[in-house]
Amino acid sequence: MTDSRAIGLDIGATKTLGVLVDAEGRVLQQVREATEPGADGVVRTAELVVAHLGAAASVGLGIPGIVDVERGAVKHAVNLGVDGQWLPLRAQLEARLGVPVAVENDVNVATLGAVALTGIRDLVYLSIGTGLAAGLVLDGALRRGVSGAAGEIGHVPIDPQGAVCQCGQRGCLETIASGRALAEAWPPAPGPRSEPPAQALFAAAASGDPRAVEVRARFAAGVADAVRTLCLAVDPATIVLGGGVSHLGAPLVEAVSEALRAQAASSPFLASLDLAGRIRVVPDDQPVAAIGAALLGRP
Amino acid sequence: MTDSRAIGLDIGATKTLGVLVDAEGRVLQQVREATEPGADGVVRTAELVVAHLGAAASVGLGIPGIVDVERGAVKHAVNLGVDGQWLPLRAQLEARLGVPVAVENDVNVATLGAVALTGIRDLVYLSIGTGLAAGLVLDGALRRGVSGAAGEIGHVPIDPQGAVCQCGQRGCLETIASGRALAEAWPPAPGPRSEPPAQALFAAAASGDPRAVEVRARFAAGVADAVRTLCLAVDPATIVLGGGVSHLGAPLVEAVSEALRAQAASSPFLASLDLAGRIRVVPDDQPVAAIGAALLGRP
Repeated sequence: MTDSRAIGLDIGATKTLGVLVDAEGRVLQQVREATEPGADGVVRTAELVVAHLGAAASVGLGIPGIVDVERGAVKHAVNLGVDGQWLPLRAQLEARLGVPVAVENDVNVATLGAVALTGIRDLVYLSIGTGLAAGLVLDGALRRGVSGAAGEIGHVPIDPQGAVCQCGQRGCLETIASGRALAEAWPPAPGPRSEPPAQALFAAAASGDPRAVEVRARFAAGVADAVRTLCLAVDPATIVLGGGVSHLGAPLVEAVSEALRAQAASSPFLASLDLAGRIRVVPDDQPVAAIGAALLGRP
Repeated sequence: MTDSRAIGLDIGATKTLGVLVDAEGRVLQQVREATEPGADGVVRTAELVVAHLGAAASVGLGIPGIVDVERGAVKHAVNLGVDGQWLPLRAQLEARLGVPVAVENDVNVATLGAVALTGIRDLVYLSIGTGLAAGLVLDGALRRGVSGAAGEIGHVPIDPQGAVCQCGQRGCLETIASGRALAEAWPPAPGPRSEPPAQALFAAAASGDPRAVEVRARFAAGVADAVRTLCLAVDPATIVLGGGVSHLGAPLVEAVSEALRAQAASSPFLASLDLAGRIRVVPDDQPVAAIGAALLGRP
């Protein structure tokens, strides 16, 4: 029974989400714990979540930062307090849990989860979180690239007059189409429980605030630029919009589709590719990254 | 004996190049004929070149335009006088030749040829011809994309203030990094047998002409932009510069490497990817597209 069950962990800066899935990938149980910061804290949190979920044949996990998949190690997960040295997460967790553990980048596990949830084996997952990055599953295979940089589309410059990016370049897609850029363009109202910037912006735009309409259009055009770049590079069947900003759901898809149609208006070539018809979001209540992590870890 | 031999054809607007290769992919014989324009002309030229090369077990061909690989048909090969209707090239040639025929886009066969000549199974072939387009072989598999648009990197806009592209968009990579853009920025000297613009420009820059140095730098920066975009999308081990402009050889690699190093100077992230170290050209005397076509056609 437990031999066909797998655990997936989505380790984030504030919380760690765990799922137990059956042989068909259905979620049997779901657990959420606050992530303890630091290398030891991350390991302890993972162990705690696994203990809550019960016995399984394997554990897979997704984590931000630079992941060495071969070695099962992570570094530069700055928001988790893991930096400097490589953290050998797989070795430490396998010793504690006694089952095989697989470690992968957070965007890549979300991409695998999107494949599982949609049933589409050829897609790009565009994660619009604090930053902007994509995961690629091409004809069923996860594309990591030779240095793990496949999908680092956030650092493609598209405007020589643009803002300086955290990466050091100017005019990167991430300076327009990311949660961080959005929070700068539409700062959150003061207060401890204010609405997230994306929700506040889209609500203001929907109510007709002309400056909000303008800021939303610029953001959506940036996401559309990222979609276009990815499609002209690898031409996937589907682009799934993910990451924190994608909790906007249908209004985000509408705004980006409109921007894609506007781009295609001047170009019969671009129009023939129907990029607006390729984008979608996954259901908001699905733990896409944890599900992908569970599938990843499966022997 | 003939069972292990394959013929590859590189059908271009002015000439059709054919090769006969052995089981190991070595070129046994090479033939070149002027391409007769029009649908019937293309078929006749292909038949003529195959007749010169002798018996083989299969024929593969690369051709510009939009190729339907499943149906073995081509259209919009405007420079060949093939437009409007689909030309069922495979069916027509199989009926005439009596062996299996495979039809593919010209950039894709060149990419397969680059894989064969370098032995590198993970590469992007950036074809700098009249336009700009890339072919992708990722972990050994040719990536065509869901609508055959994978690698259409020439139509990624990178400058909102840039020139209008033939595709209708503004500031596309092709408006900077293509043979056409180069001929506009450095028009060929009048006369029937003048040097090609790329050669004339690089010679003038090498001799210290300050305007040529500037035009060369802008062109090389555009090629570097295309390389960076492709690497941040799929992160290949190697980028092979191909197409007519690549006959420049080492001076082109040097100019593009310098532009890539300049881009990376402001970005530790970009510098860590060592894009300058990934680019190369194939030996100038190798019929890369015809060799790739021969491999493609192999049963």
